[in-house]
Amino acid sequence: MKIISGGVCAVDGVLASGAQKGKYGVGIIFNEKSNAAAVFTSNKVVAAPVIITKKSIENGHISAIVANSGNANCFTGEKGISNAYHMAKTVSKFFKIDSDDVGVGSTGVIGREMPMEIINPLIDESLKTLENTPEGSSRAAEAIMTTDTFSKEFAVETTLEDGSVAKIGGITKGSGMIAPNMGTMLSYITTDVKASPEELHKALKEAVEQSFNMIIVDGDESTNDMLVIMANGRSGKIDENFQEALNFLCQMLAKMMAKDGEGATKFMEVEVKNAYSIEDARLASKSIVKSPLVKTALFGADPNWGRIVAATGYSGAKMDEKIISVSLKTLKSFLNHELTIETSSDDKNTVKIVDKGNVLAFENTKELSDAEAIMKNKDIKIIVDLGLGQYSATAYGCDLSYDYVKINAEYTT
Amino acid sequence: MKIISGGVCAVDGVLASGAQKGKYGVGIIFNEKSNAAAVFTSNKVVAAPVIITKKSIENGHISAIVANSGNANCFTGEKGISNAYHMAKTVSKFFKIDSDDVGVGSTGVIGREMPMEIINPLIDESLKTLENTPEGSSRAAEAIMTTDTFSKEFAVETTLEDGSVAKIGGITKGSGMIAPNMGTMLSYITTDVKASPEELHKALKEAVEQSFNMIIVDGDESTNDMLVIMANGRSGKIDENFQEALNFLCQMLAKMMAKDGEGATKFMEVEVKNAYSIEDARLASKSIVKSPLVKTALFGADPNWGRIVAATGYSGAKMDEKIISVSLKTLKSFLNHELTIETSSDDKNTVKIVDKGNVLAFENTKELSDAEAIMKNKDIKIIVDLGLGQYSATAYGCDLSYDYVKINAEYTT
Repeated sequence: MKIISGGVCAVDGVLASGAQKGKYGVGIIFNEKSNAAAVFTSNKVVAAPVIITKKSIENGHISAIVANSGNANCFTGEKGISNAYHMAKTVSKFFKIDSDDVGVGSTGVIGREMPMEIINPLIDESLKTLENTPEGSSRAAEAIMTTDTFSKEFAVETTLEDGSVAKIGGITKGSGMIAPNMGTMLSYITTDVKASPEELHKALKEAVEQSFNMIIVDGDESTNDMLVIMANGRSGKIDENFQEALNFLCQMLAKMMAKDGEGATKFMEVEVKNAYSIEDARLASKSIVKSPLVKTALFGADPNWGRIVAATGYSGAKMDEKIISVSLKTLKSFLNHELTIETSSDDKNTVKIVDKGNVLAFENTKELSDAEAIMKNKDIKIIVDLGLGQYSATAYGCDLSYDYVKINAEYTT
Repeated sequence: MKIISGGVCAVDGVLASGAQKGKYGVGIIFNEKSNAAAVFTSNKVVAAPVIITKKSIENGHISAIVANSGNANCFTGEKGISNAYHMAKTVSKFFKIDSDDVGVGSTGVIGREMPMEIINPLIDESLKTLENTPEGSSRAAEAIMTTDTFSKEFAVETTLEDGSVAKIGGITKGSGMIAPNMGTMLSYITTDVKASPEELHKALKEAVEQSFNMIIVDGDESTNDMLVIMANGRSGKIDENFQEALNFLCQMLAKMMAKDGEGATKFMEVEVKNAYSIEDARLASKSIVKSPLVKTALFGADPNWGRIVAATGYSGAKMDEKIISVSLKTLKSFLNHELTIETSSDDKNTVKIVDKGNVLAFENTKELSDAEAIMKNKDIKIIVDLGLGQYSATAYGCDLSYDYVKINAEYTT
């Protein structure tokens, strides 16, 4: 597996572009005649584009995506449905495909009618500038941003068992109310693997469980989330190597979203290991990442193991306070073009602060000063060893800062 | 039912006092030979005083409480147990009762040994100043405060069906990580009703379900929570009138805690009505109160019905976005000695912002400007009508402010 550049356009046959005006943006991605699969928000209130795209995906094909930022087209009644349908129709006409083969995504303010007089020209502009270049992918990624502070793209290639090389590219926008079971997230993945819609859906679900469903910014769940994968079949058949690459790509996109949580100044990765069950590992890691007290301690650079242990205690996971161990570690930054694939867990630079129920990091210990030094970094890993089994899970999140409050107290206008 | 003064000392036969030194405090409450019942945190990590008090309550009697602030005596191993036991022993000797008849409570920092050289003198000082006066109750209430900004006491009296008058008094400390299933909460209730431990437990559980379990500040759950009721049997037999009074008392204590959530500038009460089931009503009301996006909108005085609807949507409660209605209302302040018992829901000063799925409060409407005016107040009620059944529940919470982040980023020291 290798990290490559180009985002969604890393895949041959893909065209992408985007256009912006004020707080509005439109991104378009086209991937020939593709089999497709998707996952959507579990919120009972769903936006018009989610309704449209859920219907489109039923036939197993989606070849183009049109997504806008600035307005969520949610809680907008029949008018919202017809606006979302109009977006799909415009794009399908351009590519001469069925309107059922176009997915629609929206993100932004809820409950306001879509300003089609702004969106329509942005669609036209995007269609005119489509290209299979890194720039095309970047324009699409930038156009769908809302409170994101950086655009999010990633691509990998892997050699399949049949010897052919498959590529996978993705763009995502996150920030907002990222949560497990997906927050305000639009994520679009292209690939050239050969797979049936059912095979794609199975692969996507496995990848999502270890990535997008393990990130938490504030615990709210959006009405608009969707993740679509489109596979054009130019390369070899889907297999385990593809799955591994897709898992990695989704984890990287999810980590970027966690790192860019609203108001975030720090990124945290929480690995819970040796849990009694996989459910326990997931419950505990997500509980820690979600805890406002852990999040504020991260913001304050405080190695507060008490809050970590308490969040494990109320997670619902089986645990024994006499066995639990907690360690902290500085993570290598995974952004800023320093991307590397970690192949094994590197235990150097790890400081144990609780060892089998005994607190090591108390006043005037080396453990406490080492832990405090780690907490001053931007990217931090918390490792909780439950000592009760052999299951592990990792959740991703960020700190809770003054800016989170500021952004969300003043958002609507 | 009538609101009376005196806190826990409103009840004849009760003695209380408290003493403080720096960040440490000790409160003591004595209620003769009492039957008792208690509920505790559901966190799997529990503090030493919780272990001790859980054991003490098994025989159905607790006649005295000793509670300290400044140190949670949690994650403190065998030494912690022996310190908690020592606190109970000191108090039991003074009153010449079994040490099993003393409940112990602690709140404060986790994972540090109890400074008994500070706590012991505070216990002695409290014991020497015990009295059946409002001042005694206030000293106890103040001594157990941590990040609370005001002390919390309440008392009511009610005429029982047998014609006798029963009194109920309570003190509580909240703030911190108040959550459903109880946050860092110590709460002690005295009464003169005649009841078996089983009857008391049943009454307490009913009251807690509608009060302490319906408040949320940040969603974290503490390792130290406990609520103990001690009934000395001087008055008549427990009945429905007592239950009603106990429910009301617990709701008032819980509302005070919600109003005093860490960094809170505003209080919110969320009533979900006409839900399909009582579980649905509770899920939806708690989901709204807990949502960081609703909490920051409250802080920003933004009548953001979209976030309210979205939080209802992901709560798990049955809902239909075409039927849901949302209203806002200014609440009368329930503090500052203006306490009154509301006997019916007063629908004046209520502004409907969503009516059966139709948004009323959009730009340039009277509904929006009225809603914005309501949101500028300190005490706000959100009413969500699901229109699917006949069940209601009310949850209590507060906004999420800059100060919440500040308090919790800098807490440990």
